[in-house]
Amino acid sequence: MSFCLPFAFPTLADRTYLPAATAMEAQAIRGLLMSMVISMVAGAVLLLIGRRHRGGPLYQKEAMAIVGLSWVLATMLGALPFYLSGTQIAAGQPITFVEAMFESQSGFSTTGATVLTDLETPELVPHCILFWRSWTHFLGGLGIVVLFVAILGQGSAGKAMMRAEMPGPTKEGSMPRMQHTALVFAAIYVALNVILTVIYFLEGMSPFDSLCHAFGTMATGGFSTYNRSLGRFESVTIEYTTIVFMILAGTNFTVLYLTLLGGPKKLFRDVEFRTFLGFIAAVTAGVVFFGMQAEDVGFGSIASSVRYGLFQVVSVITTTGYGTADFDGWNNFGRGILLLLMFVGGCAGSTGGGLKVIRHILFYKILRQEIEKAHRPRVVRPLRVGGATVDDPNLAHGIVVYFSMILAIFVFSWLILITFEPSSTWGVVAEEAIAEYEETQPQEAVDRIEQSKQEIEALMDHGTLDEKLLDSASAVAATLNNIGPGLGVVGATQNYARFSQGAKLLFVWLMMLGRVEVFSVLVLIFPGFWRRI
Amino acid sequence: MSFCLPFAFPTLADRTYLPAATAMEAQAIRGLLMSMVISMVAGAVLLLIGRRHRGGPLYQKEAMAIVGLSWVLATMLGALPFYLSGTQIAAGQPITFVEAMFESQSGFSTTGATVLTDLETPELVPHCILFWRSWTHFLGGLGIVVLFVAILGQGSAGKAMMRAEMPGPTKEGSMPRMQHTALVFAAIYVALNVILTVIYFLEGMSPFDSLCHAFGTMATGGFSTYNRSLGRFESVTIEYTTIVFMILAGTNFTVLYLTLLGGPKKLFRDVEFRTFLGFIAAVTAGVVFFGMQAEDVGFGSIASSVRYGLFQVVSVITTTGYGTADFDGWNNFGRGILLLLMFVGGCAGSTGGGLKVIRHILFYKILRQEIEKAHRPRVVRPLRVGGATVDDPNLAHGIVVYFSMILAIFVFSWLILITFEPSSTWGVVAEEAIAEYEETQPQEAVDRIEQSKQEIEALMDHGTLDEKLLDSASAVAATLNNIGPGLGVVGATQNYARFSQGAKLLFVWLMMLGRVEVFSVLVLIFPGFWRRI
Repeated sequence: MSFCLPFAFPTLADRTYLPAATAMEAQAIRGLLMSMVISMVAGAVLLLIGRRHRGGPLYQKEAMAIVGLSWVLATMLGALPFYLSGTQIAAGQPITFVEAMFESQSGFSTTGATVLTDLETPELVPHCILFWRSWTHFLGGLGIVVLFVAILGQGSAGKAMMRAEMPGPTKEGSMPRMQHTALVFAAIYVALNVILTVIYFLEGMSPFDSLCHAFGTMATGGFSTYNRSLGRFESVTIEYTTIVFMILAGTNFTVLYLTLLGGPKKLFRDVEFRTFLGFIAAVTAGVVFFGMQAEDVGFGSIASSVRYGLFQVVSVITTTGYGTADFDGWNNFGRGILLLLMFVGGCAGSTGGGLKVIRHILFYKILRQEIEKAHRPRVVRPLRVGGATVDDPNLAHGIVVYFSMILAIFVFSWLILITFEPSSTWGVVAEEAIAEYEETQPQEAVDRIEQSKQEIEALMDHGTLDEKLLDSASAVAATLNNIGPGLGVVGATQNYARFSQGAKLLFVWLMMLGRVEVFSVLVLIFPGFWRRI
Repeated sequence: MSFCLPFAFPTLADRTYLPAATAMEAQAIRGLLMSMVISMVAGAVLLLIGRRHRGGPLYQKEAMAIVGLSWVLATMLGALPFYLSGTQIAAGQPITFVEAMFESQSGFSTTGATVLTDLETPELVPHCILFWRSWTHFLGGLGIVVLFVAILGQGSAGKAMMRAEMPGPTKEGSMPRMQHTALVFAAIYVALNVILTVIYFLEGMSPFDSLCHAFGTMATGGFSTYNRSLGRFESVTIEYTTIVFMILAGTNFTVLYLTLLGGPKKLFRDVEFRTFLGFIAAVTAGVVFFGMQAEDVGFGSIASSVRYGLFQVVSVITTTGYGTADFDGWNNFGRGILLLLMFVGGCAGSTGGGLKVIRHILFYKILRQEIEKAHRPRVVRPLRVGGATVDDPNLAHGIVVYFSMILAIFVFSWLILITFEPSSTWGVVAEEAIAEYEETQPQEAVDRIEQSKQEIEALMDHGTLDEKLLDSASAVAATLNNIGPGLGVVGATQNYARFSQGAKLLFVWLMMLGRVEVFSVLVLIFPGFWRRI
């Protein structure tokens, strides 16, 4: 049924798009129909397989296999609309299946990274495909809320974290309770989506844009329908609305639920939420006062610095990835801070990705504890979070292992990228920069430097290629943590189109790893996993 | 007594230095005398304090305080010769006390990072100061071998690692045995220093250079007496000699000792040593085939690529930091690999710094184990290294905590550096690059681009300042892991002079953290450490 919605949609959208693109839209709709048929066949096959298994107990291993493989399947099926609709990543460059998978994975994992260079030309990206992109965000966000918060949150590390953190509804894991919780969470999620859509509409967006951007915000995804992302609207109210709802989307849904029942006191009593807000405030202050440069949009007046700075900080920490200004133009302090912020993420049990605030709180406490242990081996102090004692002895180990795992994946992926990604991915930027440079010069200046162009080119090549190491690191960070945009070639005004197909496949993998919290996906590539015990 | 040697030395050195620098040398010698007096007074005070304590048991906390504070004191005393001798970091720039501490810490911790921009002008850096620098390497290396391998290696994490890894002499910790071990290790260390000095001399170095470079090699330090480091000799034999001895210095001294008793079979049966060699071979192959650029020294012929590539890989992995070619000119793959290699380090129980090979082996095995645990919670498989089972349950946790700690220190220091280090540290490079660029152009080209210079400057500023994030990361990595040179502004042909005093103090701290393996130094800044239990 999820595939049906787009058909209804072009009629709601603002009509200016349609006349030029009717042929394309027709092809896109044929593509969507095809995708639907294929998905239904796949679904039927799975159901048949599932029926054969019915009744037996579900082992952890099998549960992981189901989660991991479903995700892979969803990515492939979600890629079909992009692939079959004849979408083009740039004029004359039809999307490959790997790129379609990238876009689909980016949607489901609520990353928001894109390979589409021009969203505003319906001949390249049909209108209903734009909607499909945003719709994958909605589905992805819903899946996280229901699946991970209410059901998987009960297992292994998530379980320990939840037990430590969350009082109330999710504490006992009896089946009817869990189903109830899942329903409540889904209701909150859908309600927030509806509310935000209405607000966006009242603030002047078209119904189509309102819906797409609400999906992108509440799923902490970040797909927009415009090349300039949310910055296109140039509206202070829309931006502050988005900030508030990004923060809500990055907040633990259990806490939101409790707040709904018990008032805002509950919200501010939550340690993770308070730390989350503290992070946002501190980093925004840092960015506003030290992170911008004279040539930046919003630089100069405090009000507009806060507007652009706060938006970007919230967008990155919640792993949404919307942009209103080109943060890649910020100075090195600002860019460095944003890079680190990518690893923070939202609260546990939210639609936000990343490492999650609670893991950072625990990580800090564990390291402090270890330092104390080093010189006072006999003093055993329990780990305390927000007044409650964390009694699970495996939790501390689980947290440091998780950080270690993310570190290993990050370093390993970075290594792959700098080894195999050709320098021409960056070379293009150098050429573009030179073209742009020439464009902004008066004609005589262009003539004057024509002869020394080669030398300048050599220098510039060095300059931009030097960013390869940092850009690659930011691309890995932005996909692994489900942010979207990174620095340099994947910066706020750029996209992932110029990467090689192999790199795109790596990013697909990383987005999945980041979303399913590593283990479920990582085990799939270990041969030992498929052996019977 | 360690201070006396330099006095004897200028007579051994090649005489060409002396006539021009007699006045400076006289001042330097007065400085050394002063340093000696101050050190003796400090030593006497410490002895008096120590005597009062004699007899009581030594708690872990006290042992850590002693190690940490001794190191701080040694750094300060070691800084005196630099400070009092009137050494200049560049013409007209006398060394500050912070810079003197940097140089002293760099020596004792066998890092080899320097703030001295010109080593070859005795008016700036007197001859006997050059010797003092190398001598701090010798002392630092000796201290590590004796103190850390033979004595501290018995405690906490080191103990567990040694128990897992080393059969034989260090296994039992009875006091006379430990003293014997310390003596044997010191003898091996001194013997290797002597042998290498003789070899260097036979290969054509002056006695002074032979001794200084032997100290730098065997301590895996990296201080040279020339601006071009070991590359100045342009000698294949000297380079390959250095490669062999750097590998020896990066090998576990217990294994060296056993090899001495039982033949080379013992050496190659050691898992860590085999992994160490494997790393070197694999990375060298990668660098030789993919890491160099057409304009590099040694590029083209396999023999010379191997010569320069192998040297640099061994120099970085053993944390020595000598250079024969400007590896900062390697392509991004090569530079990225070297940056990662900085975190590998030598074998445990060697003079090499970094994380150590054995920790990486264990880290890898632990993460594999955790992935298996995730899907087979009931299968408990013991951790095995080189056929032996590691039975200590705290070891696995200790290893991931150590990696986490290094990660936290790395990120935190990087953050401090990008926040507080002024951009002018990089701006200088841009100006230099432009000056150099103009120099290499024919005059008419310079005139031609004079008018558009401002625009080029703007572009270039961006280019080099963009490296601030990466350069800072490499500077932190290179000091924390006791390497020496890093990338960009701290690259092979550069030094740490241009950093602010605050940054230099941070580096002093990082070098100490890296050397004493974090905990002993880290606890010193925690107020809780100084409270009585």
